[in-house]
Amino acid sequence: MKITIGDYLIRRIKELGIKHIIGVPGDFNLQFLEQIEASEGIEFVGASNELNAAYAADGYSREHGISALCVTYGVGDLGAIGGIAGSAAEHIPVISISGIPPLFAKRHNYKVHHSLADGNFSNIANTYKEFTVVQTLVTQQNAKEEIDRALRAAVRYKRPVNIQLPSNLSYYFIDVDEEPLLPESHVSDEKSLNDAIKEIIMLYEKSNSPVVLVDMDVDRLEVTKEILQFIEKTQTPFAQMSTGKAILDENHPLFIGTYKGNDSEEYVKDKVENADFLLSVSPRFIEWNSGTYSDDLPMEYLVRLDKDYTFVGDEIYEGIDIKDVLNEILNRVEEKTERYNLNKNEEDEFTFEKEKNINHEDFWKQIKPFLKEEDLIYGETGTTSQALGEIIMPKGTKYIASLIWGAIGFTLPALFGSLLVNPKRRQILFIGDGSFQVTAQELSRILYKELNPIIFVINNDGYTIERYILGMEASYNDIPLWNYHELPHHFVKNNKMLTFNVKTQGELQEAMEKSKEATHGVLIEVHFDKQDAPETLKKFGPAVANFNFGERGMEDMGEEERIDEEINT
Amino acid sequence: MKITIGDYLIRRIKELGIKHIIGVPGDFNLQFLEQIEASEGIEFVGASNELNAAYAADGYSREHGISALCVTYGVGDLGAIGGIAGSAAEHIPVISISGIPPLFAKRHNYKVHHSLADGNFSNIANTYKEFTVVQTLVTQQNAKEEIDRALRAAVRYKRPVNIQLPSNLSYYFIDVDEEPLLPESHVSDEKSLNDAIKEIIMLYEKSNSPVVLVDMDVDRLEVTKEILQFIEKTQTPFAQMSTGKAILDENHPLFIGTYKGNDSEEYVKDKVENADFLLSVSPRFIEWNSGTYSDDLPMEYLVRLDKDYTFVGDEIYEGIDIKDVLNEILNRVEEKTERYNLNKNEEDEFTFEKEKNINHEDFWKQIKPFLKEEDLIYGETGTTSQALGEIIMPKGTKYIASLIWGAIGFTLPALFGSLLVNPKRRQILFIGDGSFQVTAQELSRILYKELNPIIFVINNDGYTIERYILGMEASYNDIPLWNYHELPHHFVKNNKMLTFNVKTQGELQEAMEKSKEATHGVLIEVHFDKQDAPETLKKFGPAVANFNFGERGMEDMGEEERIDEEINT
Ligand SMILES: Cc1ncc(C[n+]2csc(CCOP(=O)(O)OP(=O)(O)O)c2C)c(N)n1
Ligand SMILES: Cc1ncc(C[n+]2csc(CCOP(=O)(O)OP(=O)(O)O)c2C)c(N)n1
Repeated sequence: MKITIGDYLIRRIKELGIKHIIGVPGDFNLQFLEQIEASEGIEFVGASNELNAAYAADGYSREHGISALCVTYGVGDLGAIGGIAGSAAEHIPVISISGIPPLFAKRHNYKVHHSLADGNFSNIANTYKEFTVVQTLVTQQNAKEEIDRALRAAVRYKRPVNIQLPSNLSYYFIDVDEEPLLPESHVSDEKSLNDAIKEIIMLYEKSNSPVVLVDMDVDRLEVTKEILQFIEKTQTPFAQMSTGKAILDENHPLFIGTYKGNDSEEYVKDKVENADFLLSVSPRFIEWNSGTYSDDLPMEYLVRLDKDYTFVGDEIYEGIDIKDVLNEILNRVEEKTERYNLNKNEEDEFTFEKEKNINHEDFWKQIKPFLKEEDLIYGETGTTSQALGEIIMPKGTKYIASLIWGAIGFTLPALFGSLLVNPKRRQILFIGDGSFQVTAQELSRILYKELNPIIFVINNDGYTIERYILGMEASYNDIPLWNYHELPHHFVKNNKMLTFNVKTQGELQEAMEKSKEATHGVLIEVHFDKQDAPETLKKFGPAVANFNFGERGMEDMGEEERIDEEINT
Repeated sequence: MKITIGDYLIRRIKELGIKHIIGVPGDFNLQFLEQIEASEGIEFVGASNELNAAYAADGYSREHGISALCVTYGVGDLGAIGGIAGSAAEHIPVISISGIPPLFAKRHNYKVHHSLADGNFSNIANTYKEFTVVQTLVTQQNAKEEIDRALRAAVRYKRPVNIQLPSNLSYYFIDVDEEPLLPESHVSDEKSLNDAIKEIIMLYEKSNSPVVLVDMDVDRLEVTKEILQFIEKTQTPFAQMSTGKAILDENHPLFIGTYKGNDSEEYVKDKVENADFLLSVSPRFIEWNSGTYSDDLPMEYLVRLDKDYTFVGDEIYEGIDIKDVLNEILNRVEEKTERYNLNKNEEDEFTFEKEKNINHEDFWKQIKPFLKEEDLIYGETGTTSQALGEIIMPKGTKYIASLIWGAIGFTLPALFGSLLVNPKRRQILFIGDGSFQVTAQELSRILYKELNPIIFVINNDGYTIERYILGMEASYNDIPLWNYHELPHHFVKNNKMLTFNVKTQGELQEAMEKSKEATHGVLIEVHFDKQDAPETLKKFGPAVANFNFGERGMEDMGEEERIDEEINT
């Protein structure tokens, strides 16, 4: 069957259920955008700039499972790369497509705009190689093979890939068959699988105190269902990491809490660190989710699953697919009949005082009953994700925060992306003013596409989270004061977003009431004192400072001490 | 003399006359920001995000000669990289400083936030290596050497450099002397210089029709004065490239026009291509400034100067500094007494019609008398730089446009940077709505720092320049409609920016009159029809499409033709 390269790429993208290709037009991708426009069942959605487009694609992927991004060469590629790296860090598959100069210009090292005008075309590709699992240039001869390879890798490894499509080749024809992109196949090595299962079951059967520890890859590798089945069939208690928050229901009777090394509650720490069978999907400990690397898992009892290998203690079993391992485990373990209820979800005390100014201590308690089952909730790097990390989320909610990559400004465009996937789902964003300013223009695209989120902007005069790390009063942590609640009215003419400017608990309550009935989006600007912060941040800040700047913080130090430290590092 | 690493870096930056370090705070650079705050005569200036910060640093460098940028690891680095690459493409020196995780974390491959959490710390450095002339990691032992090496390279090559400063090392002491960063030195090889000069003078003396051709490196390599001296002493006519616009006075009696291959006026093309002595400073022809590579310089008569080598015809002379070559040429050539006046600057006809709607044909004629000597004028990629390219600029103006890199959104943050250098200079920006939306938040930083530019926002409902390349009616070239003239009032509370919403010539005239007396910044939103464009764009658009997408444009083509083309590429 004859098909143009561009149409083939679109066909493959559609096979993945993607209905929107997000991006920014440019003279090296316009021809591909024409092909998208001409295609049924898929749409190009423009973002204000390429970083925002990449974040939107990340958000789209978090809600749909995979997404596609399209930018123009050089200027577009480097605009988007921060978002692509974020997706790589957070294990989010994104198919990034770059419209590049015509192939002959690249082959013969033409000096072109959107490059350094020195004939070098590898710098952009090299950059993408650092943050993608496949980086490739499509030609007429390799198109089918390379497009399929890239897309399959994105699906398999849940990571971004990059496809360069020369502007003059989109309309060239290739000959392809009707084979689907993802044929069903069984991928595990039988012997390796049997060996692993034997070890795992042995370990499990000897155990008295098994625990499951959930990090983000449970979601990314799409084994949430299997992990939950294991927990329920075996009545095994589970903890989550902060980077794996709310992937399983935090109200589940077997949920014991969030494990973060020495920063955990005593009960959780004890349970996890003294487990004699600890099942986990590639947990990743960074300073931020481990109480500065104070995590101390019982390594000999740890069963660590990954996409295509499994560790049992320090024994590795290669070549086995995570789904096969989990299904096999599920087959082998016996159903426990006794039901436990470990969850000791306490009610927060909160007394509503209409005239009282908003502060962090009250705010999140007042917010909590507003959150509903099945909501999609975003927390941004800053006070919001610090506070939301401590809130038990209603069943079925999805919680999104960039807790590894942690780029501020990520959430607003990501929200744009996830709203495209699921405009009917209630999607709520909590974002600090500093973060909002990073990518504010994407609010206009949300309105332009008539999407209806609920957005809380935390207006606390600057970078509060940073104040608790360094510079409580420093001017570098101050930012311009915007009228956040006015902006939507100027971003898209005549849009009907409901906006509120909230200083007191009474005003907040009213805004929340009204937003429940709103037929359009809602933006609630909430004023906080600039040094007010959730309790967790008051510990988190100094811990970060201590790790980053050294125990003696910013003090000058003597020669000897310095030499000591130099040797230790 | 003992000094901390951070303070040493600041001292060196101050030696370059830099008074503002532009950037975005992050937990890996806060300690360095503390050191900046503690230092006299230099200030940290925050931008809304890292791309904007990099653009602001570029603008600062264009006005001051060099600049410094400071961001945090990973998220900040990759946010800024598009701006850094732009500076590399446009030959703008920027000292980019990244606050990175503590050295021991890097050395021992810790999993940290703002990385891919896989212990890989080379990906970010590798990215920077592609777009900087020095990329280095500072340690206590190498600090002096590496800081000096990086800064000297930025000065020497007029390109960005990148310095990684570990967050735990800023306060470590090093021992340094009082030597300045840039010792006076004579750098040319004597024999090579003599040989080159002999050839150049011989060529010049035989010539009947010498010409000087100006591209951006005349400015970047700081030889504007010398080139002008040569022109005036020898009464040699000069042309400019569009990428070298207004570096020399376009009203000069010896100015003949803009050379752009077949797109040049006949007279200019004839003069340049038939010169028998053509002096130039490393002109760079890309598709956009050469009538799609139709440039045809007389190569055997071309004297091409660069920083440290010179071509005379196809003979290269290495190891000679451009200043030495020019000064030597100036010494040798004889002064011409006869004065020529080639400049045939015609007056545009423009009849003012108060009620008439704005369009491109009239607009730029109405604007022209508004531009004054010594203005700094920005054109953005889009209709504005297309139109401004055709306008003769008043004497002493500086014209800035990113004509090689061509990233939209560059100019607004760049304006922020150049205003920091020279807040008293009248700085005027013309920017399209699509470009404005890319980096709009930087307007708030301009207001926050109480800077007073004049900004014309061309509101033409989308990406008009792209409509002329492809998709005249396509929805991918549409964008949300903002109230541009309202935004400043919500970006910084109580700021006094004067704003206008202009649809007719009368309204434009009034806005310009009022802005002459304004004590604050001015923003003029000007409405155009969405398909209205300057004449040049009507030729430029199809030429770009033709180059990018092939002669047959978007048409399907038969097997044989494709094979033919494949072979030819
Ligand atoms: C792209 C990027 N730049 C810089 C940082 C460093 N950083 C982390 S949090 C933060 C401030 C966030 O402030 P805001 O959004 O106002 O949140 P608050 O803590 O005040 O709620 C900054 C600048 C970052 N994480 N990402
Ligand atoms: C960062 C970046 N993304 C995409 C492009 C492609 N591009 C070039 S011009 C343009 C449209 C500019 O529109 P606008 O600023 O409204 O200018 P107009 O032509 O309408 O005056 C775009 C999207 C680019 N040059 N840079």
